[in-house]
Parts: sequence; structure tokens; C-alpha cells
Amino acid sequence: MTRPLPSWNDGPSREAIIAFVDSVTHEGGEGYVRPDERIAVFDNDGTLWAEYPLYVQIHFALAQVERLAGADPALLARPAFRAMVENDLKTLQSLPKRQVLEPAFAVHAGMTIDSFRATASEWLAQARHPRYGRLFTRCIYQPQLELLDYLRTNGFKVFIVTGGGVEFVRVVSQQLYGVPPEQVIGSSTRARLELGEGRADIRKLAELGSFDDREEKAVNIALHIGRRPILCFGNSDGDVAMLRYTLAGPGPRLGLLLHHDDAQREAAYDRQFLVSPLAEGLDRASDYGIGLVSMKNDWNKVFA
Amino acid sequence: MTRPLPSWNDGPSREAIIAFVDSVTHEGGEGYVRPDERIAVFDNDGTLWAEYPLYVQIHFALAQVERLAGADPALLARPAFRAMVENDLKTLQSLPKRQVLEPAFAVHAGMTIDSFRATASEWLAQARHPRYGRLFTRCIYQPQLELLDYLRTNGFKVFIVTGGGVEFVRVVSQQLYGVPPEQVIGSSTRARLELGEGRADIRKLAELGSFDDREEKAVNIALHIGRRPILCFGNSDGDVAMLRYTLAGPGPRLGLLLHHDDAQREAAYDRQFLVSPLAEGLDRASDYGIGLVSMKNDWNKVFA
Repeated sequence: MTRPLPSWNDGPSREAIIAFVDSVTHEGGEGYVRPDERIAVFDNDGTLWAEYPLYVQIHFALAQVERLAGADPALLARPAFRAMVENDLKTLQSLPKRQVLEPAFAVHAGMTIDSFRATASEWLAQARHPRYGRLFTRCIYQPQLELLDYLRTNGFKVFIVTGGGVEFVRVVSQQLYGVPPEQVIGSSTRARLELGEGRADIRKLAELGSFDDREEKAVNIALHIGRRPILCFGNSDGDVAMLRYTLAGPGPRLGLLLHHDDAQREAAYDRQFLVSPLAEGLDRASDYGIGLVSMKNDWNKVFA
Repeated sequence: MTRPLPSWNDGPSREAIIAFVDSVTHEGGEGYVRPDERIAVFDNDGTLWAEYPLYVQIHFALAQVERLAGADPALLARPAFRAMVENDLKTLQSLPKRQVLEPAFAVHAGMTIDSFRATASEWLAQARHPRYGRLFTRCIYQPQLELLDYLRTNGFKVFIVTGGGVEFVRVVSQQLYGVPPEQVIGSSTRARLELGEGRADIRKLAELGSFDDREEKAVNIALHIGRRPILCFGNSDGDVAMLRYTLAGPGPRLGLLLHHDDAQREAAYDRQFLVSPLAEGLDRASDYGIGLVSMKNDWNKVFA
């Protein structure tokens, strides 16, 4: 038999995962959980793929905003758009998640979901991470891919719960993570159905519907999944509410936060990452029963 | 081999279903659809279980509202609540869907989702349909159960898209239809996460989040599922938008409306059912490419 989770080093994180999975799958055991209740939720940015120094979706919006600013100079009056159009990464990196993502969502207002998907798909097929030089779609974490597979092999149903735009992540969720679109929950703009002769399109509107961050992640899990997860994996303070929601249920639970402490292979950041800091998560992890995963110590390989 | 869909009579509806499923599952054929794209959506009230003369959820709210009215007489000032407390079914049957459902949702504002689920579960375990005398949970349609199984056997993933409250339908969706909670989309109130010492509860608020009817059904399908269904089955004008959304996609599509034309075994109603009429659906079915299923002629058995 091959060793499960080969890119995970021996140590408390890997042991906790394997002990948890053994417990919930051991029929007749005290911690046994029926397969249909084995719901696992994963954050995306910084948990499944690289988010530092700037979200993939912001890079995508940057590519779009240039095109749009040519068409509508009025957008420039808004500071976050200006920073985007001027490719002012420093300003963008200094804005909190919502401020930087909201204009990124707004860029696509007025598109149908089908045309948005085609545009995002085309961009993702060729866009490269400025720091690592590889395709963004290759900036995904090998240990996490192994974990997703390991969970599914053990009867888990895996969902992504992301602050990123739900349609954006859905474009690649199946291909990258084996997670089908209907198991992706994310931020969303409002939309409307347009009906015509033999035509029915969903068009994205400018208004934000749900900003899927912090408490809203837990509320959206309840709305979309309808049961409390038993495993939750995140990497920032934006994930702490859904971790606490997961851990507050009865029976065995596992909550993990990935700590980006690996300057050599990826990046070392936490509190000072203004877009999406990890501070409360570090300070309160043990109070909340959350395990901290060290990229540097727990992973023997980073990128897939 | 047993004949598939035994409770369906030979005729155009059964033939259309079988021809459609044969087509999308025939590898190498022109109409082949990959299993992961075989998304089917079903309305619930009037499509999977009886809705006439009053929604199951209204009966549930009636049971609750009596309790609540004792605690808060101010509710009585609102006409729909008054009709509920006075058990004035005639008035309730004369109100459009949204007017009659909104107070039914509001009855449960302030409850946590967990306590709502327990209350609904307890009620559903013993409440009986006033006309048929059997448990509400036995007022489900046998031909539809066969159809759900037939679709799943052929690789479809089945979702319920209901105007009813999403948490209410989730209580029984697995048990009655084999549809897990995460594959139920419905109307919802807003909610908030409450965090305490080792406690994290989702509490339902009074404000309506989504009223899942007509165009909103299609928008919610896009939000929750993220792909266009290839099969849609409804029974009222509230389902026409999602039927048109389904049918407007490329490749083979099937859209069906159940016509309640069976006064002897269930009920005969369409335009005159004020809560949820079927009028546009009857008038425009052939323009839209929607097939009409006759309960009277197409089904040799009604209830499971």
C-alpha cells in the first residue's frame, strides 16, 4: 500500500487528518459519521491555490479593466478602478478584500454568465503568475490535491467556499480540484434572467448579491449545503467563522488553517497581508480548536 | 428486464422521456451528454407532492402560527396571519403564492436552523393531509419517484427547485425523494451566524432573502448549480421561466409540465388555482417546446 498524503510530512497535521478520517469512517466506532454527512469545505485563495501578493481574480480583472476603461472612462473616477487601470499593485495590495474584490466583480456587470465563463476560461488558459512565471492554474498546492482525493476516497463530499467570484472559480474547479460547479459557493453579483425568442440568458448585474467572507461563509454554507460540515480548511481570518461553525457541531470535527510561512518555496505572510490577514486565526487557534498547518514544516512539496 | 417507469402509461409523455434519456446516454450518438452535465431540476409542490388546495408548508405554518399568535397578538394585525390564525382556508386559497408563503416563512423568524429543522421534522412525522387523510409525506407521486430513480440510474444528478422554504423541503428531501439537502434550492429568509463560547448557530431572520419563483428560479439555478439543466419538470406558471431557461440551451433538452386534470384520483385544477395557476403554461406550452403531462391519462397510479 502506498503511504496516503505523500506530500505531507510526518507530524501533527498529517496525523490529525488521518486520525480524523479513520475515526469518522470506522463503522461501529464512537466517532463514526454516515457518508452523506461527511461534508468538507475548503477555502480557495491561499488554501488551494496561491493568493499572494494578489488574488488571481484581481489579475483577471486587471486584464479586463484595461479593456473596459477604454470604453468607459467614468470608471476611472473610482479609486479602486483607477488603481487597477494604472496597474497600481501597491495600492491594490493595501486594500481590504472587499474593497479590492468589489470592483473586480463590477468589471463583469452586464455580461451574460455564459460569456463571462468563456472570457474567464480563455484568460485562465494562458495567464501566468507574475512571480512564479507559471500558469495561474499551476499555482495549486499538491498536498491539498492529495487531501481532496483522500477525503473523496473516504466518502467525503468536498465543497469550495470562496471569497472569490463563484462563476470565476467554477470555470476551473472541476479541472483543477475535481470539484463540480454545483459544489462551489462564492461571492456573487445579482443577476437577472432575460427571455427572448428561443433565448434565455442570465445576465450579471453590477449589484453585489453576496460577499462570501467571514460570517457570510457560514450563512452561505447553511443556505447552499444545508448541513454543517465536519471538516473545514482555510488560511485567513476570513475563514475563522466557518471554522468555528464547523467545530461547534456534535461529534468529531476537524478545522485547519494553512499558515504561509515558507518564504523560500512560496511566501511568508500573515498579519501584514492587508488584503486578507491571518491574525485572529493565529492568536485564537487553540482556543477555537483549530489546527495550524505550517507550509514550511508540514509540506514536503508545495506546487502541483 | 422490467419495464421502466411502470406507473407511466404508454403514450407520448413516457415515450418522450425514454427517447430523451436514451439519446443523452448513447455514447457516440449525436445527442450524447456527458454524465456531469446531466442536470435535472424538479419543482416540488404540485410536481413531486400534492399542493392542492393548500401547500403543505402552509399547513405547517398554520400549526405554528396558532402557537405564535398566543405569544404575539400583534401578528394578527397582518391580514395573511389573521387568515392563518382564524384557519380561514378560503382566504388563504385566494392569495397569490408570495402573499401566502411570506407570512408562512415569517412564522419561523428568530429560530435557529437546527431548531426549525427539529420542529418541521416532528410535524411532518405525524401531520395528515385534510383531504386524503394520509400523512403529507405519503402524498407524493409514485410515477415521479420512478422517474427520479430512472434518471439517477442513467447518470443524472437531480435537484429540487421549489418556491417552498429551502429548510422545510430539506427535512424530507432525502427520505422522500433520495435528493440530499445540498441539491435542494428554495425560497429562503436571510440568516445570521451567532458565535458564542463553543457555540455557532445560524438564526433565521424575518427578512426574505430569495423568493424562489418564476425568473428567480432560473437565477437561483445559475447561482447554486452553475450549469444549465437539460431536463426540467414543473406544474405551474411559476416553473415556466426555468423551463424556458432549460430549453434554450444547445443539444437535447426536455421540459415537462404536469397538468392536474384528475378529479377522481387527485384534483383537477389549472387557471383557477389562485395560489399557483397554470395558464401561460397551458397556452404557450407548444410555442415554448414544453410537453404537457396529463395526470389522468399518463399515470396509471398517482400516490406512492
